[in-house]
Order: sequence, then C-alpha cells, then structure tokens
Amino acid sequence: MDYVARIPRGQVRTPALLVDLDVLDANIAAMAARAREWGVGLRPHAKAHKCIAIARRLSAAGAMGTSCATVGEAESLFAGGIAGILITSPIATTEAFERIRLLVFRSADVRVVVDHPAQVEHLAALGLRTDRDRRLPVLVDVDVGNGRTGCRKISDALALAQRIAHCSALRFAGVQAYWGHLQQIANFEERRRRVQAEAQKLAGLIKMLTENGLKPEIVTGGGTGTHWIDAKTGLFTEVQPGSFIFLDSCYAPLQLSPEPSPFRRALSVATAVISANHPNRVIVDAGFKALATDSGKPVPVRGAPEGATYRFFGDEHGAIEFTTGDRPALGSVIELLPSHCDPTVNLYNRYLVVQGEAVVDEWPIVARGY
Amino acid sequence: MDYVARIPRGQVRTPALLVDLDVLDANIAAMAARAREWGVGLRPHAKAHKCIAIARRLSAAGAMGTSCATVGEAESLFAGGIAGILITSPIATTEAFERIRLLVFRSADVRVVVDHPAQVEHLAALGLRTDRDRRLPVLVDVDVGNGRTGCRKISDALALAQRIAHCSALRFAGVQAYWGHLQQIANFEERRRRVQAEAQKLAGLIKMLTENGLKPEIVTGGGTGTHWIDAKTGLFTEVQPGSFIFLDSCYAPLQLSPEPSPFRRALSVATAVISANHPNRVIVDAGFKALATDSGKPVPVRGAPEGATYRFFGDEHGAIEFTTGDRPALGSVIELLPSHCDPTVNLYNRYLVVQGEAVVDEWPIVARGY
Repeated sequence: MDYVARIPRGQVRTPALLVDLDVLDANIAAMAARAREWGVGLRPHAKAHKCIAIARRLSAAGAMGTSCATVGEAESLFAGGIAGILITSPIATTEAFERIRLLVFRSADVRVVVDHPAQVEHLAALGLRTDRDRRLPVLVDVDVGNGRTGCRKISDALALAQRIAHCSALRFAGVQAYWGHLQQIANFEERRRRVQAEAQKLAGLIKMLTENGLKPEIVTGGGTGTHWIDAKTGLFTEVQPGSFIFLDSCYAPLQLSPEPSPFRRALSVATAVISANHPNRVIVDAGFKALATDSGKPVPVRGAPEGATYRFFGDEHGAIEFTTGDRPALGSVIELLPSHCDPTVNLYNRYLVVQGEAVVDEWPIVARGY
Repeated sequence: MDYVARIPRGQVRTPALLVDLDVLDANIAAMAARAREWGVGLRPHAKAHKCIAIARRLSAAGAMGTSCATVGEAESLFAGGIAGILITSPIATTEAFERIRLLVFRSADVRVVVDHPAQVEHLAALGLRTDRDRRLPVLVDVDVGNGRTGCRKISDALALAQRIAHCSALRFAGVQAYWGHLQQIANFEERRRRVQAEAQKLAGLIKMLTENGLKPEIVTGGGTGTHWIDAKTGLFTEVQPGSFIFLDSCYAPLQLSPEPSPFRRALSVATAVISANHPNRVIVDAGFKALATDSGKPVPVRGAPEGATYRFFGDEHGAIEFTTGDRPALGSVIELLPSHCDPTVNLYNRYLVVQGEAVVDEWPIVARGY
C-alpha cells in the first residue's frame, strides 16, 4: 500500500468511515484460527462489510466463502471475484429469481436458501443447467425460534428438501438455521442454554433428513454472539458470523466464549467540528445520515474531552457535549464508535483504512444500497 | 419519458425508493406559486432529495437556486449544472475549505455561511479572485434559538459581517437564520407565536447591519414547517424548505398554513414479501438498511391488509403484521410510507419514478453519502 499517499487520520474528509487495519486483521485471524481449531467452516457474513477487499482478506485467512443477505450483495461480490457465496435470505420475487438465473448463467459459485415450496417451483422453472455437477445448490432455511424466515416445522423442511432433490436443475445442499434472537443474550451461560435448546430442533431435522437419504452436506448458521457455542454443538459444518470483524457495539460488552475474547473494535466514524460557539458543546458534521440510529448513540473516543457524549442533532449534525476538559477546536476531527456497524457501513461509499495515525488505503463499499 | 420501458409498480427490484411524479410536481408547483405570490425567493433544500433531476424541476418551477447541507451535495449538484447554490452549514476543516476553493475556481455559483471569525480568516486566505463581481458571497449564520450552528449574539454577527466586508476576496451577502427547533411544533398558532418571538432577534440584527452600512442582500432560512409563517414575517428575501417536495411524515399531520395544505405524500419504499410461513405475519426485505429508524416505524399503504403494521426485524428484514384480511402473497410487493424522508433517501442510489401503476423513469441520487 506504499503507493497510497498517507494522510493523517485527523485530516480526512468528514464524515468518514474509518477501519483500523491492524485490529481488523487481528479479528479476522482470530476467528479463522478458531474455525480451523474446531474443524468448522467459516463463511463470514458480508452484510457487515459489503466490501470486496474485506471478503478477500477473509478468504486469504481461510474462510471457505461469503454469506450474503441479498442478491445485490451476491452480485457485487461475485463481480469482485468472490467465490463460495451463500445468499441467506429466501428469494421470492420474479425479478430476484431472474437475477439468480443470471448469476448461475455467469457461473457464479452461488447457493441459495428456500423456506416455501413455491420458491422451489420457481427455481425449477428457471431453465438452469441439469448436468450433475452444475446443479444449483439449494439449502432449506429452518426457523429455530427466530420467527423471521425459515420452515417452522421440521416435517415441512423435510418435504422441501425432498422437493428440491426431485428437481433436475437443483441439488439439495443442506440446511440453514439462524438463531438471531439468541445472539445478544447478555449472560453467556444463558445464551449457551438457549442455543442448546434450539439446537435440538436442528438435530432432529438433520436426523430425519439423514434417515430419508438426504444427509445435509452443509449445515450453516450462527453469528458473532453464539459462534463459540454454535461450533460446540457439533451440528454445524460451517458458521456465518459477520460482526466480529469490527466487533459491533452490541457484542463488545458480551462474553463471547469461556476464554478471553480476542476481538476488538475496528470501526469508527470521523466527524469534524464545524461550529464551536457554546462553552460546553460543539457541533459536528455527522448526524442521521452518517450514523445508524437503531441502536442508540455513538460514543466519542478520540478528539473529544474524556467523558464527552454525542447527541443526534438532525440529518447532518450532532452535538458533542462535555463538562470538563478543553473545547475541541473548530475544524478538528472527533472519532465516534458507531452504535451499530452494519447499517452505519451502509451509509458510506468507502472505508478509509487507518494504521496508527495514517490513512493507508481506501476500500469501496461496493454493495452499499444493494 | 416514452423511451423508458414502463414496468409495473408492483414488479420493481426491492427494496426500492418510489417517488410519485404527479404528487411531486404538484408539491413543487404549489410551493413555487406561494413563493411567487408572497414575493419571496425559493431556494429549496437539496438535503431532502440529493438529486439533480429534482433540483432541475424545482428550478424550472421558479426556484432561484438550491440550498445544500454539505460541500459534497454542492459539488454533486454543481456537476449536474445546478446554479444558485447556498451551503447552509459552516465550513470548518482545511479539507472543506480547499473544496470550496476548487468550486469557486470552477466558477460554481456558490455561497457559504460562517459563524466564527476563524472561518472568515480561512476563506480570506484561500487565494480567491478579488474582482468586484467575482468575490465569494459569504453569509453570516445566526442562531435564532436552535442551539446548533450560528452566532449566538447579534453583536458577534455584526462583527463577523464587518470582517467579511473587509476581505478583498469575499462579499458580505447577508444572513441565515434557521429555527429548526420550531419546525415541528404541533399547534400552528403556537408555532407562529414562537417564530414571531425568534424573528425579533433576526429583525434586530438586520436593523443593526443596515445601520452599519451592511444591509443584507439575502436573508435566508425557514423550513417546511414554518414556511408560511416565515414569509409573513417580512424579514426573509428567500426561504429554504425541502421536505415539502415529499411531505415528510413529521409534517403530514401538521397544519402548515391557515388555508388547506396543497402538499401530499410523494415518497414510498417498495419491499417484497420473501417469507410467508406465519398466519398473521409476513417477512419483507426492508429493514434498517432500507428505512430510516430515527423517527419511528414506516406505515404500510399498498399491498398489505387494512390496518397492517410494520415492525423492524434486523438490518435487511421487516415484519408486516395484520389481524384481518388476506395474507400478502410470497413475492408480492408492499409499499411503506417512510417515517423520515431525508435519511431514507440517503439509503438509496436512485428513485424509481412512478406515475399511476407504472415506473416511468429512474433518477440517480447523486449526492447520496456526500
């Protein structure tokens, strides 16, 4: 990266999304090491980063592929040369099925999930290739208590798997089970107990599929909050955590494993002081359009007095308030830890990659808005 | 627009941002007619739309220019041929001043606001042209109770105006006063009383400037919530409303003028049903990344049973819940009224322009993320 002009971190165009390269790489290496040690595949979720450069770093560290939340993410990452793509939300519109057809036509290494027979019929009618080794891999999404997508009964999931197996252009590739509702349970032991309870449904489905000659090649799911527990269930062939790369705010205070967590915060938003006419408050150029609001307020970590707080002040503005310390100078840059990484990333066109005090690279967020 | 393939509104790629062309044009025409009738200039705020096509429609209807919240918006709109640009937030970083220098160098028709002497010094040191008719127009931003940006004392504002007037490359162009804190006061009469009270500070400043030989050529401010009242103060040469083009949720229930409001809702988000395994709930593909969350939940208006409600269900998902009526079909499209237009627009790369049941055009949101 020596060809990139190194500009000081405190002089960036604001608002800007900063990712700390060393922390990011350490987080990636730590998760890859865990997956290797446990003998579980790692298909990290690109919904967190939407970025080809990060997907490549994950692959280089040993990830077997990339999970995507949307067809648009899959298209963007495929265009960037990423393989091993799993789209984790069911496809349902005619328009989305057509895009899947195009991805397969272009030989994208992609797999999809379904949770309803109509989706299988739609996939079967796309006119995909029927060569044995080119069939589209399709997983059955099962609802393990999250209440969002997925078959609710394991008998429905079995029937769906059988239906897939009967389609000449499709290949039954396995099962997806995501306990999103358990990811952020505060107490680790409680989280483990709840995962183990839900895991029984998944175990029952795997047993039933196997007895019916449909042993799942892939069993995928899990997230940052439960990845350690997921792996220890012995059910998953792979896990899909995403937020660990930045260590999102919701996970930072949680115990994620019995041993000390190797993950640290990698993402911040740089914002500039654009008005400083109050004694205990300055106005910065980051508001609703620069910071996700669904999970509370961001926290100042650099450039502001100890104990300073952030308050949203409209679409393009925020207030940094403080009771002690020097007022930050007009034009100076303050860094904030966002309260929720995924939707904050989605607000930016690029990451500025920082190492120590320097900006060393710029990575496009290609799947932003897709 | 006959060259654009007309696709049905219910078959768009989801999630999508839809703008109703007829409603948008009617809103624009109504505000332009009011401004003409009142003899007040209209410099609508592009922070709401971030779109060249909409800025052009506003200009064609009689707007004198465009207000921008950020330098990035100004750059994007200037590149699209938009003139009469006012950047409504103070410039403060070295990087932002340099971009102002470039805009002026490229002959952009741009004006800026300041609220601190250091900003004037910085502008004066940019090496801008000093020809009498090419000086950069600079306005003094005055805090009329909003507590965000602006000079707090009118004596400071006067001193700042004098400082500008003494710079050979700058021209004192007037005053900006924005009562953001009054825009959404529920009761019209109360809103009017509060505006009239704050307006006294502005009137005092205008008087003081005039007495000091600095009669402001421009007095700008106001918003959708107060535009009728703003115009009637007799103080403003122009108003900056933005949200009226879509009639944002916060303004829809408010009385905006003594006469009936001509403004209607023009913006919706189209989302598809991607899972339908529950009796009284379907899952749609719009979550935190498709809908702003700072002002509550969106409201289903098309494609869902009467009385259905929306619930956020993560970054890419929402639940549509209902107690009566037929369950929306898998793959069908539901339209939602977003709870806050500006930050919702900022989540999309383009508008799909609808007329009746057809999508008739696509407009890039060029300043998204800037």
